[in-house]
Amino acid sequence: MIVDAACYREGHRVSPAGPADVEDLRRRTGDGDVLWVGLHDPDASELAHVARAFDLHPLAVEDAQDAHQRPKLERYGDTLFLVLKTLWYVDAEDAVETGEIDLFVGADFVVSVRHGAGAPLDDARSSLEAREELLRHGTAAVLHVICDRVVEEYQSVAAELMTDVDEVEASVFSDERTQDAARIYVLKRELSEMRRAVMPLREPLRRLATGDVPGIGAGAAPYFRDVADQVDLVAEDVETLDELLSTAFDAHATRISMQQNDDMRKISAGAALVVVPTLIAGVYGMNFTHMPELAWRFGYAWALLLMGGSAAGLWWLFKRSGWL
Amino acid sequence: MIVDAACYREGHRVSPAGPADVEDLRRRTGDGDVLWVGLHDPDASELAHVARAFDLHPLAVEDAQDAHQRPKLERYGDTLFLVLKTLWYVDAEDAVETGEIDLFVGADFVVSVRHGAGAPLDDARSSLEAREELLRHGTAAVLHVICDRVVEEYQSVAAELMTDVDEVEASVFSDERTQDAARIYVLKRELSEMRRAVMPLREPLRRLATGDVPGIGAGAAPYFRDVADQVDLVAEDVETLDELLSTAFDAHATRISMQQNDDMRKISAGAALVVVPTLIAGVYGMNFTHMPELAWRFGYAWALLLMGGSAAGLWWLFKRSGWL
Amino acid sequence: MIVDAACYREGHRVSPAGPADVEDLRRRTGDGDVLWVGLHDPDASELAHVARAFDLHPLAVEDAQDAHQRPKLERYGDTLFLVLKTLWYVDAEDAVETGEIDLFVGADFVVSVRHGAGAPLDDARSSLEAREELLRHGTAAVLHVICDRVVEEYQSVAAELMTDVDEVEASVFSDERTQDAARIYVLKRELSEMRRAVMPLREPLRRLATGDVPGIGAGAAPYFRDVADQVDLVAEDVETLDELLSTAFDAHATRISMQQNDDMRKISAGAALVVVPTLIAGVYGMNFTHMPELAWRFGYAWALLLMGGSAAGLWWLFKRSGWL
Amino acid sequence: MIVDAACYREGHRVSPAGPADVEDLRRRTGDGDVLWVGLHDPDASELAHVARAFDLHPLAVEDAQDAHQRPKLERYGDTLFLVLKTLWYVDAEDAVETGEIDLFVGADFVVSVRHGAGAPLDDARSSLEAREELLRHGTAAVLHVICDRVVEEYQSVAAELMTDVDEVEASVFSDERTQDAARIYVLKRELSEMRRAVMPLREPLRRLATGDVPGIGAGAAPYFRDVADQVDLVAEDVETLDELLSTAFDAHATRISMQQNDDMRKISAGAALVVVPTLIAGVYGMNFTHMPELAWRFGYAWALLLMGGSAAGLWWLFKRSGWL
Amino acid sequence: MIVDAACYREGHRVSPAGPADVEDLRRRTGDGDVLWVGLHDPDASELAHVARAFDLHPLAVEDAQDAHQRPKLERYGDTLFLVLKTLWYVDAEDAVETGEIDLFVGADFVVSVRHGAGAPLDDARSSLEAREELLRHGTAAVLHVICDRVVEEYQSVAAELMTDVDEVEASVFSDERTQDAARIYVLKRELSEMRRAVMPLREPLRRLATGDVPGIGAGAAPYFRDVADQVDLVAEDVETLDELLSTAFDAHATRISMQQNDDMRKISAGAALVVVPTLIAGVYGMNFTHMPELAWRFGYAWALLLMGGSAAGLWWLFKRSGWL
Repeated sequence: MIVDAACYREGHRVSPAGPADVEDLRRRTGDGDVLWVGLHDPDASELAHVARAFDLHPLAVEDAQDAHQRPKLERYGDTLFLVLKTLWYVDAEDAVETGEIDLFVGADFVVSVRHGAGAPLDDARSSLEAREELLRHGTAAVLHVICDRVVEEYQSVAAELMTDVDEVEASVFSDERTQDAARIYVLKRELSEMRRAVMPLREPLRRLATGDVPGIGAGAAPYFRDVADQVDLVAEDVETLDELLSTAFDAHATRISMQQNDDMRKISAGAALVVVPTLIAGVYGMNFTHMPELAWRFGYAWALLLMGGSAAGLWWLFKRSGWL
Repeated sequence: MIVDAACYREGHRVSPAGPADVEDLRRRTGDGDVLWVGLHDPDASELAHVARAFDLHPLAVEDAQDAHQRPKLERYGDTLFLVLKTLWYVDAEDAVETGEIDLFVGADFVVSVRHGAGAPLDDARSSLEAREELLRHGTAAVLHVICDRVVEEYQSVAAELMTDVDEVEASVFSDERTQDAARIYVLKRELSEMRRAVMPLREPLRRLATGDVPGIGAGAAPYFRDVADQVDLVAEDVETLDELLSTAFDAHATRISMQQNDDMRKISAGAALVVVPTLIAGVYGMNFTHMPELAWRFGYAWALLLMGGSAAGLWWLFKRSGWL
Repeated sequence: MIVDAACYREGHRVSPAGPADVEDLRRRTGDGDVLWVGLHDPDASELAHVARAFDLHPLAVEDAQDAHQRPKLERYGDTLFLVLKTLWYVDAEDAVETGEIDLFVGADFVVSVRHGAGAPLDDARSSLEAREELLRHGTAAVLHVICDRVVEEYQSVAAELMTDVDEVEASVFSDERTQDAARIYVLKRELSEMRRAVMPLREPLRRLATGDVPGIGAGAAPYFRDVADQVDLVAEDVETLDELLSTAFDAHATRISMQQNDDMRKISAGAALVVVPTLIAGVYGMNFTHMPELAWRFGYAWALLLMGGSAAGLWWLFKRSGWL
Repeated sequence: MIVDAACYREGHRVSPAGPADVEDLRRRTGDGDVLWVGLHDPDASELAHVARAFDLHPLAVEDAQDAHQRPKLERYGDTLFLVLKTLWYVDAEDAVETGEIDLFVGADFVVSVRHGAGAPLDDARSSLEAREELLRHGTAAVLHVICDRVVEEYQSVAAELMTDVDEVEASVFSDERTQDAARIYVLKRELSEMRRAVMPLREPLRRLATGDVPGIGAGAAPYFRDVADQVDLVAEDVETLDELLSTAFDAHATRISMQQNDDMRKISAGAALVVVPTLIAGVYGMNFTHMPELAWRFGYAWALLLMGGSAAGLWWLFKRSGWL
Repeated sequence: MIVDAACYREGHRVSPAGPADVEDLRRRTGDGDVLWVGLHDPDASELAHVARAFDLHPLAVEDAQDAHQRPKLERYGDTLFLVLKTLWYVDAEDAVETGEIDLFVGADFVVSVRHGAGAPLDDARSSLEAREELLRHGTAAVLHVICDRVVEEYQSVAAELMTDVDEVEASVFSDERTQDAARIYVLKRELSEMRRAVMPLREPLRRLATGDVPGIGAGAAPYFRDVADQVDLVAEDVETLDELLSTAFDAHATRISMQQNDDMRKISAGAALVVVPTLIAGVYGMNFTHMPELAWRFGYAWALLLMGGSAAGLWWLFKRSGWL
């Protein structure tokens, strides 16, 4: 579906909002104009139509249709092809979902093909239209606002995961008995998915930030450097979180095992308390003819006292050793 | 065995399907024609025959006969020598099997030597013959369809392994008691075999994709870039799966140990329940002359009550502590 | 807040101490003079005012306002933009806190924007004003004293953490029973925060130390090499501490588990001591008509002796095996 | 000891087999001739004699005498100095032994100094003498056959270690109780020794394979590329085996711990079976005046039945829970 | 303290042994002469005196006074500044101690500043004075003998640590019960200290070995290559030892846990042996009126036999299962 198609001239939008006929727009594009055509989950025919209008390379179009690429920046003739993965966090499942934006950047046009629910570009477009000085950088400006929008989402996903890791941490080191292994595993999985979106993007952004990508003016480099820095920060977050989770997992395993051993020790020590009184009862249950205590008036009381005393003694001993 | 040998001219096959006499074909090859000779598990004499016809370097021929190489791309004079490992998944044993395809690429010919059951090339050939525009790239086109075919199999093997890892994961984190160590180990082994096929291939493909391999026109570069991207994706899959398996193994070990400790605690706590009643029985089994309870009318019932009560009290205590 | 603004001429300060009007200072700056304007936690308008006076790039100003950057060195036209993270150690919480200093370095001025409580720059300024020979290096001198001040704090934080790790180590390998997992985890977290401040700074400092940053004279290179060496030392400290903590954690886990197993063994062995006497008591509690010992004059004593003897025998056996 | 010294001319040996006087040979060497002098564990005077004859650099000669070098390729004036580590497998001890071959390669001579029992070079020499076409590459040919011989031994050692790892693996995952920790450790040690022989050799071989070593003709490059590929394969084997052993060790530790816990559980559950019958016996051993069962005709049988029944009930319960 | 100061001319020492006045020596130095001034733990004024005599850079002098640097090679104008860490092994504490040697190398002088007890340089000096051919390389020769001396100590420290690791290994895999965790930890700490001395030295030595350090003639390169090779060997030793220790630690932890579990199993199995006889005693202690065995003539013997038999049976069962 073509979501929006606009022509920008001298820092201003010169076409009405909303979808428009692409070929028509293309024909009326003058010198110095910039066209931005935005598609969302297009079907094959829509994409083919746009590809024809802008003369896009079939291999890149196939990739854009397929939407199962790594982040990358490639040149097909005069057209740049940039793949970005979008990420968003689904609160209900603590899960990170992945989408894709494929960008074709020519001398005077940008075609954005968005797949999945992540990173809607309408606010990117309005922020672009509000910044006249940025718009003068032409296609680079469009490229920049889209990258910026995507990386902004990375940051918010990273923030969500950081909260999750903080929760896991609190749970692991709390005094309660918790089961954190599965959650740690799931978080590691999400981080690994995030890493696959973020890490390969660093190199294309560095290239844009150093201004050595033909078609992207050196004047726009600082803008991309800014985005590249944000991606580096996110990448560092991901690495840090992953390491913290590994340590937390080990701490969790150790803790669980310690708690279980504590339980066993308490049960065993408790049972051991009863063992000596039982022996005493056994002794006075023996059938010897000559057992003076048996005939004592307070023999029974004496035996009970002995039992209670020995148990109390053991209890004190165990307490002192920290076994109870 | 020579499986098929064909001459392509101006985008079309000009020789009949099926095996043919190689030397004869070679002699009749005109300017701009491309020969593709396909061998499958050839014996030494067959290979020697073809090597003579195309003047292949003896060291490369030895490698191709031997079929125990790492993926690599080498130049022997004007001929390129490319080694690809083929992979396929044998469902019955959850195992990844490895074969090899050795390619000799000259100015106007490609000799493919396939070992093992993986990646039959007949569908590669038919897809090539169906794409006239691709065939115009000459030997690069043949090279491309073969690489594409092999990498396609990598992807399907990776998908199978991903399913296996998902199963292991489900098993590890299920509530049942499972034995996953051996399976995780086997999967790690398969992944390590896969890694050895995939990783060394990245560099040759990158070289083909940047168009700096003599004899492979720059026009074919985008096609190889496409294949290289797929290999990168597979390589990422392999790394991700390997890390997930490591984490899953740790989680499994922790879980097993926890379950076993749980069992022990329950058994011990259960035995401890009986210890106090036994003591009580021992007490009333003592032979003191003066034990008032013994003469009580309901002494026996009193003793049983005491036993039952103490056991019930302990049971409640243990339940509260989560020990039973 | 503008903390101090000064003009240096031929190695001496020529303006009064304390805040001054920036634009006024700027206007009166002569050839060869160096201005240093220091801000601390400025609000947006203060920063905008200074940015206007020195014509700073809006993207860099935004970064400096935001104060959430990685350490980096960037060029915006003729102005260098350097981001440093400040670190300080809060004893009360054993925590490492992070701040930021953003520096704008032009041909004849340095603007320093400090965020957070770390690394107050007044002593950097006085040490600068006391070293005439250093001041002759112009803006590079100012840059140097600030970097030096920040890295000095890194060193003191590293020293504090080293003390903490030593304490943890002593605790882990002491004969007492200690709970070090949570503290090790917290220290690892602090180290990871420190790493994020220190590691990315190495590359900018190396660039300054090799003298290939335009605007920073090669004569100042040895000064920056000195700072770069200190940062390398700190970076090594961080790596070493992190590895030691990992090993200490493993040792701790092993030790805890060993101690718990020891306890269990002692309890079990203790209980086992009582088992044989109990059996003996049971034997002499049997009701057989013909049991010669029962009628012995010293039968009771004999039984007690038997019990004591067997327990002592077991005790000796267990001692010998190291079980008690 | 000088093992053999020969002069090769136009692809043929022109001197008799066996040791010969080196200086004499040297004097009679014509243009285009190649001398190969082979020493085995030479004493200092023998080596000094040869060094004088070929004017070898004292530092290299010292290294060759010492035989405690890393694999390396160095130039001393016009002479190349190549160090190879030899490896061989001693079946009796499952151990990998290490020797060394030091090679001096001049314009028209090769001096090989072999230390230890590994890689005898006589078959390398005969294979060289049998291949006239190879011999025409001069000193490069001699260098090649020696490298080839050494790397062949690496491959056979790697194969032996692979068998060992397979055995360990089978043992670890067998149903029997095995003690594999020490063996895994020893294997890891052997692999680390092997790694130190193989890894540093890759770089010198790559240099020889790319033909940029002065004195080694580019025509010989494919031969060295062949050897370099074999070394890469061995290096990959070593890495793979090391990783497999690490995983196997973890699996072994987990397995042992599981088996021990199983034993404990069975013993505890078995003991718990007897606890309830003991209580019942205790109950009927009480001395209450009014205990109706005691007077029953089949009271004793009833008690035994109760004991048997409770034990059987527990047994069924434990079986169902998988505790016995 | 100035330990020795000498002037070398044409391969011979031309000044008397022992300390001398530095400025005086400096004044009398002719063309082609080389001065070596050796200081040991100098105080600030001594060092300042020498610095003035040789016009050393204040930053380097500060570093040399401070003696808390990483190994590095730097240029200050025409003077090289090389920092070496010295290592020595203190047997009494199994500890590795660290010192430092700072070298200033000018066109015709070397100033060595040694801190700590490691690597006394008098034997380096005598070996230098004994080798006329080496002395002709001028300052490079002095630099070489010092590096050589320091690296020799690395080797002997590495050998000591290797012995320690061998001991730990033997202890870990012995049949005795050992406590190796703390020792392994200490060894890892020593290795990490050693790594910090050795690793950063590789790069400066490589630079000296390739002859691209101004002021060090290419003719001296082979000598530094020799030292660089030794450092590489030591670095490999350190890495290998560290990995072995990690594996040994894991093996130790596993072993300890196994031994403890073995103990527990034996104690539990032993206690279980007594449980059945106790039950039998309990049975014949019951007070039923009708219990035929009680009246048997050999009833008591029968009961004892039953007890002995059941215990023996269990003992046989447990032995067969490997539980005792």
